[in-house]
Amino acid sequence: MSAIIRERKSLLCVGLDIDLKLIPEGVSPIEFNKSIIDATRDLAVAYKPNLAFYECLGIKGWELFQETVEYIGSEHFIIADAKRGDIGNTSKYYAQTFFETYSCDAVTIAPYMGEDSVAPFLGFKNKWAIVLGLTSNKGANDFQTLSLGNEKVYERVLKSVASWGNDGNIMFVIGATQASALQEIRKLIPNHFLLVPGVGAQGGSLDEVLRNGMTVDGGLLINASRSILYASKESDFAEAARAEALKMQSTMASYF
Amino acid sequence: MSAIIRERKSLLCVGLDIDLKLIPEGVSPIEFNKSIIDATRDLAVAYKPNLAFYECLGIKGWELFQETVEYIGSEHFIIADAKRGDIGNTSKYYAQTFFETYSCDAVTIAPYMGEDSVAPFLGFKNKWAIVLGLTSNKGANDFQTLSLGNEKVYERVLKSVASWGNDGNIMFVIGATQASALQEIRKLIPNHFLLVPGVGAQGGSLDEVLRNGMTVDGGLLINASRSILYASKESDFAEAARAEALKMQSTMASYF
Repeated sequence: MSAIIRERKSLLCVGLDIDLKLIPEGVSPIEFNKSIIDATRDLAVAYKPNLAFYECLGIKGWELFQETVEYIGSEHFIIADAKRGDIGNTSKYYAQTFFETYSCDAVTIAPYMGEDSVAPFLGFKNKWAIVLGLTSNKGANDFQTLSLGNEKVYERVLKSVASWGNDGNIMFVIGATQASALQEIRKLIPNHFLLVPGVGAQGGSLDEVLRNGMTVDGGLLINASRSILYASKESDFAEAARAEALKMQSTMASYF
Repeated sequence: MSAIIRERKSLLCVGLDIDLKLIPEGVSPIEFNKSIIDATRDLAVAYKPNLAFYECLGIKGWELFQETVEYIGSEHFIIADAKRGDIGNTSKYYAQTFFETYSCDAVTIAPYMGEDSVAPFLGFKNKWAIVLGLTSNKGANDFQTLSLGNEKVYERVLKSVASWGNDGNIMFVIGATQASALQEIRKLIPNHFLLVPGVGAQGGSLDEVLRNGMTVDGGLLINASRSILYASKESDFAEAARAEALKMQSTMASYF
């Protein structure tokens, strides 16, 4: 991934959160996804379909997910944003689902159930577990930032989870709205890639994320979903998406 | 649900964790599920398909899930054991998936992302969010039991989550292997229903759970999956499943 990041001077991850209420009339879901992908292929290094938006469509949604993943192909890093995690015997099947049944490169995971819920995702060659650290939403302050005395809950999560694998099979989700915490986070996990949602519709600062989070390998996958996908709700949605993606990629390029 | 619990003197939830490696040869997955359901209908009050086991089968798995849910019907409480949870705009679609697309009564939820990740599940009439409290696995000790000073992480989770809804739309997952903590947990959440996995294959004590966790309404849904489903791996699997379910229900009946 580092090669494609350097070559494109991009850390852009496009979140494919397909919402039937927001796509232009007369455009089918798969046409929409394909158009967005084609419009952003040379600007993005990763795509991140969020499973909620596919599951809610029933069987058809899973067909759409599968076709979308196949259409993206092997050049880009594909993240199944699924927020899974269960006891070991069950997590094993979730890992199999996203790494084998659907050939994704990574899956997002909630850490609440601890090591045996994460470990089954770590045994696949060139596959990644992306574990929630400090999320972009308001609810991050309900539990993640509580104090355990000498550290916060999310800091303990980062340190513990990092010790279960390495920076070649684990990444962390750190919300862009938490960019001010990134310098301290980099002290705990200097080399791990971070998946950073929350730039765009959620209001996080792209510059602050880049300044505080980049590593020599890039070290970041910065996601935008709604701000790119729904930049225009008219027939020019793909051009508008490209313009928005290009704006982000240009900012990123200035940090290389 | 209280009526069917009292009538059957049962708190039994049968976990439908279909595993192609463990079902008898020559029996199709849907035949297997239907046989297990038919063999336990009068003994169980709830069924809990665990989504990992369905998702890993691809599109066919979701067809199997849908057909299984339809076959269970409306008399039993149906729990989608999916451990979902995301930012509000996404959780909304997960709620829609399980409550509307698939007509389940409840879905299990990981609390790490806080209130806005749980709230979207609480606005559906007669539907329930079942939030992870203290889980049955070894990894429960990685984060859930850490001390926040005057309380543990999971205790704060129980109290906070309980305050976001009420005992008519929220339940909690408390592992049977944590039965010794149930008396203290009942002080925090005296009336909430608890979904209790971990009796059976994971080794929790059914009697201890019943002694420490029951309320006047029952207050518990005690799950067994592998110990019932795979009580026999031969053609008598349904009879063996019924015998195992009956053994559990008989123990439960003695507490009514």
